[in-house]
Amino acid sequence: MFTDMKIFAIEASGPVAACALLDGETLVAEYSVQFQKKHSQSLVPMMAAVRDLVGLDLKEIDAIAITEGPGSFTGLRIGAATAKGLGLAIERPILPVPTVDAIACNMWGARGLVCPMMDARRQQVYTGIYRFPVGGGEQTAPTGGMEILYPQCVTDLEVILDKVMEIAAETGETEVTLLGDGVPVYGARAMEILDGKLTCRFAPPHMSRQRAAATAVRAAQIYAEQGASCLVPADDFRPVYLRLSQAEQEHSERRDYRI
Amino acid sequence: MFTDMKIFAIEASGPVAACALLDGETLVAEYSVQFQKKHSQSLVPMMAAVRDLVGLDLKEIDAIAITEGPGSFTGLRIGAATAKGLGLAIERPILPVPTVDAIACNMWGARGLVCPMMDARRQQVYTGIYRFPVGGGEQTAPTGGMEILYPQCVTDLEVILDKVMEIAAETGETEVTLLGDGVPVYGARAMEILDGKLTCRFAPPHMSRQRAAATAVRAAQIYAEQGASCLVPADDFRPVYLRLSQAEQEHSERRDYRI
Repeated sequence: MFTDMKIFAIEASGPVAACALLDGETLVAEYSVQFQKKHSQSLVPMMAAVRDLVGLDLKEIDAIAITEGPGSFTGLRIGAATAKGLGLAIERPILPVPTVDAIACNMWGARGLVCPMMDARRQQVYTGIYRFPVGGGEQTAPTGGMEILYPQCVTDLEVILDKVMEIAAETGETEVTLLGDGVPVYGARAMEILDGKLTCRFAPPHMSRQRAAATAVRAAQIYAEQGASCLVPADDFRPVYLRLSQAEQEHSERRDYRI
Repeated sequence: MFTDMKIFAIEASGPVAACALLDGETLVAEYSVQFQKKHSQSLVPMMAAVRDLVGLDLKEIDAIAITEGPGSFTGLRIGAATAKGLGLAIERPILPVPTVDAIACNMWGARGLVCPMMDARRQQVYTGIYRFPVGGGEQTAPTGGMEILYPQCVTDLEVILDKVMEIAAETGETEVTLLGDGVPVYGARAMEILDGKLTCRFAPPHMSRQRAAATAVRAAQIYAEQGASCLVPADDFRPVYLRLSQAEQEHSERRDYRI
């Protein structure tokens, strides 16, 4: 199911700066920090540390996975710049992963629905709705299996929770796990809204933020599904800001360009 | 639910060498490697790297979490020696976490049963059976919630799978997730045995091995449940080899002392 690709993943879309090396089915290394230090200061030294620790020749990397967005404007730019620079140097493509999909992948195999929430400011969240279903009695392969029930978007808390309840009713799921840096901001309100309708759980700290290892695994799944068409030359890669394009489409307000 | 403790976790019980810093509900840092290099060479430099990256004064640590065993004989000794040395220097206690419980915690929130399997050689696995149930409609707190249905032990593959099927029948669960370094060795055989009786999934690479971050979170849960009684002075901490004591009890064979 897994290719034998070496995927080096970079994460800078939110509060976490991180990198990970996935070699086939082996997570060779993962280095992650969620701290006040700026990603611009920590990310490259962490990548160098991993390279040195496992004696990695960067040329061995087959693809550079990165959470393409949405996320922090500055974070996405730092991540993109780092990935593009690396890709240019080692002549390897970028494998972009939608940020919310990557976060959902933290909860692989979870009961019920999975709803990541990144704080998008202005009372909104970057979010989506996912599920990890099980085939009826069949032996399921280790990878894949993530259903994207509502693709990543930026919206109001109430809107996504309405959608969660609608999808729960459709699918027969009775619970939802919330995760992401939106939970400290909107989790209590979400529990109020869902109370009595759906059981709501918050992911614990080791599963609740961006993980470069999850991004790498999601990238491998995307490659397994789509083949080389998912790869982007380093030159051509651009982050996906989501809100910017929404602002363009809906408002055409120049002042809305900055998050 | 979480204490505001700073927990520094050390992992060396299996193929992974890792450390993580949990500060209250924030996973501040995680550094993990699964590579041929010996834990004795990688563990302390990784700890120093994390300390430097987040500007940690080691004296700020409240407790040192460690997977106490079972696991690789050498790995457990390296982990224990490192934790004891650190604890002695900073005068902080050790918070031991059963290794299989910590691995199960990787799958927090999973559907069905969770059955970690570490390769214990001699056709046996270190294993246990866990579940992450949901209260009937009630809002569930983020931490805790891990049911230990069959405590960690060393046994034959067939024995634990019989137990998995028995517990599945009792609890009404219809699937099981297998994870751990026993899966590459025994996974295919396990699928054969379970075929048609229970849906079986293998955890993907980012969830399938020991994680220091999961150990730290499990340690925080144990502290929340048991309070200070779970803390052990660094001097007194000893790894739990499991097979050794079983060997003592069942066979009293001196030649069985080494794994």
